[in-house]
Amino acid sequence: LDTRVLEEARDRQDRMTKPPGSLGVLEDISVQLAGLAGECPPPIPEPAAVAVFAGDHGVHAQGVTPWPQEVTAQMVHNFLEGGAVVNALARQVGAGVTVVDVGVVGDLPGAAGLLPRKVARGTADFTRGPAMTREQALQALEGGIEVARDLVSAGNRCLVTGDMGIANTTPAAALVCAFTGADPARATGRGTGVDDATFEHKVDVVRRALAANPVDPADPIGTLAALGGLEHAALAGFVLGGAALRVPVLLDGVIAGSAALAAAAISPEALGACFAGHRSSEPGHSLALDHLGLRPLVDLELRLGEGSGALLALPLLQGAARVLRDVATFDDAGVSTAHA
Amino acid sequence: LDTRVLEEARDRQDRMTKPPGSLGVLEDISVQLAGLAGECPPPIPEPAAVAVFAGDHGVHAQGVTPWPQEVTAQMVHNFLEGGAVVNALARQVGAGVTVVDVGVVGDLPGAAGLLPRKVARGTADFTRGPAMTREQALQALEGGIEVARDLVSAGNRCLVTGDMGIANTTPAAALVCAFTGADPARATGRGTGVDDATFEHKVDVVRRALAANPVDPADPIGTLAALGGLEHAALAGFVLGGAALRVPVLLDGVIAGSAALAAAAISPEALGACFAGHRSSEPGHSLALDHLGLRPLVDLELRLGEGSGALLALPLLQGAARVLRDVATFDDAGVSTAHA
Repeated sequence: LDTRVLEEARDRQDRMTKPPGSLGVLEDISVQLAGLAGECPPPIPEPAAVAVFAGDHGVHAQGVTPWPQEVTAQMVHNFLEGGAVVNALARQVGAGVTVVDVGVVGDLPGAAGLLPRKVARGTADFTRGPAMTREQALQALEGGIEVARDLVSAGNRCLVTGDMGIANTTPAAALVCAFTGADPARATGRGTGVDDATFEHKVDVVRRALAANPVDPADPIGTLAALGGLEHAALAGFVLGGAALRVPVLLDGVIAGSAALAAAAISPEALGACFAGHRSSEPGHSLALDHLGLRPLVDLELRLGEGSGALLALPLLQGAARVLRDVATFDDAGVSTAHA
Repeated sequence: LDTRVLEEARDRQDRMTKPPGSLGVLEDISVQLAGLAGECPPPIPEPAAVAVFAGDHGVHAQGVTPWPQEVTAQMVHNFLEGGAVVNALARQVGAGVTVVDVGVVGDLPGAAGLLPRKVARGTADFTRGPAMTREQALQALEGGIEVARDLVSAGNRCLVTGDMGIANTTPAAALVCAFTGADPARATGRGTGVDDATFEHKVDVVRRALAANPVDPADPIGTLAALGGLEHAALAGFVLGGAALRVPVLLDGVIAGSAALAAAAISPEALGACFAGHRSSEPGHSLALDHLGLRPLVDLELRLGEGSGALLALPLLQGAARVLRDVATFDDAGVSTAHA
């Protein structure tokens, strides 16, 4: 972040026709956007593109979710038909939707809006060894970087993370444990909704995955390979790609949060481009946000994924930039200031 | 709210292609919108209009704020020029801005976007007696009802509350005390930002106002007249007017919250149309929201007023309705459901 521009943006916030500090967190967001862009006021982060990275998970065989694995591919179809929540919210806020197959088990027919970047037909069951090879993790990561680059080349000025992958909160919990040191009982959540027995089992599965894969968080690629999903690795690359281009990356829930932990471990500067769209009800997401020092913009107990929470926050991010661009200063507007 | 439609909306939320409950608070919002409209799915609440009710306050003479009273009129001018935060955020989310003079001290030249509905040149100092006569409070209330009716007649499908009035958090705190029973020390905030000494003085002013005006909260008009501002009374009418037309009313901060307490005391059913856009950092606002049973959509420490917090929440309200309209069901999309 450009420190001179950060200072300029803070100064402008204090001269605009409103009490200093009265826009709360929105002021911090606007300052970060300016520092990221290297100019004050910053460009409004629009148009925005949500990339939904889809993958399957070998750990699904361990019975961590009541949803059949085929739902991943079915939901990809639903995204491409425009019938899912991510589509509805993207339409409402004016964002485009791109689906990226990084690791769906089944074959997906070519379609407009689908980027075929399949690295593998799902990951391996990480309770028995690494989920991916190091090469697979790197390939997915590079795929994410390329998607970010292509979306920005196409004119997008904001990247929004999305994900789809039945069972993908299980690797997310494992990644949160590896990068934050949290115990699986604290980092594991109920995902799309599991009963008490399945939840206890899921915690045990995460614990066994960590035992089967002794990772070093200082080796983020190795950690992603052992404990991640293909969409988690791709999302880490997506964050890095956006940050390298100084484009804001609006993060969705625990999948993006766990990927951002990996991205920050690879390149701490990438966090300067990251904005936490929301806090999901997955406990591992709060652990990730705390570890990253990110404050969520929306906190409404969503636990869907797809990019839904981040899309809700998109107008707030855009509004923060718009305020810094459009609002008159006391001098310009001829408005009196407070007595000292 | 139409209970049959509420049921229909809940059922539809459970059949859409997402885990049941996974949209958290957004599902509740969508159900309330359906029940309010009497149809499922409900219309998307757009276009939206923010009405900024402006007034001055006799209690300003007690030194409750460092801002000169003339700033109220200067900011009205700023709104009409499009240079304030409310204008910037309204542009970002596609809402129209209307300013309503219900009680500014000075004369305001006629201008496009300004509705002249002046009831008085500010209120009286309520530490020495009632802020308004009962007739003035009723006239302001009726003015607010009419503004709601006119904006809906003009095609708006969502009403957003806004306010401007130097010193207006002081009467808001007094109203919160009267309607919730809270002590002034808990209900009073720092408004646009006052130092410790001024804050202590402000608490004392609220306490003296309550002592000078023994009100009965079961007489909400009398309470508004004694302790309110003209914009608070008008906003209570705006809420009632929107609710009567079954149009959602998106509430901003503590000024709207205190007005909603009065509106709910007049007609409890009006709450069915109310959505809390945000939680401001004014402590009285949280007391009002708790008393009303409203959960804020955005919670980012804003304390500006003007309608800024509510405008940030507008896309969330619209997104909630959009989801219920657009998202495919499991049956329609051919997506498998979870195993029982």
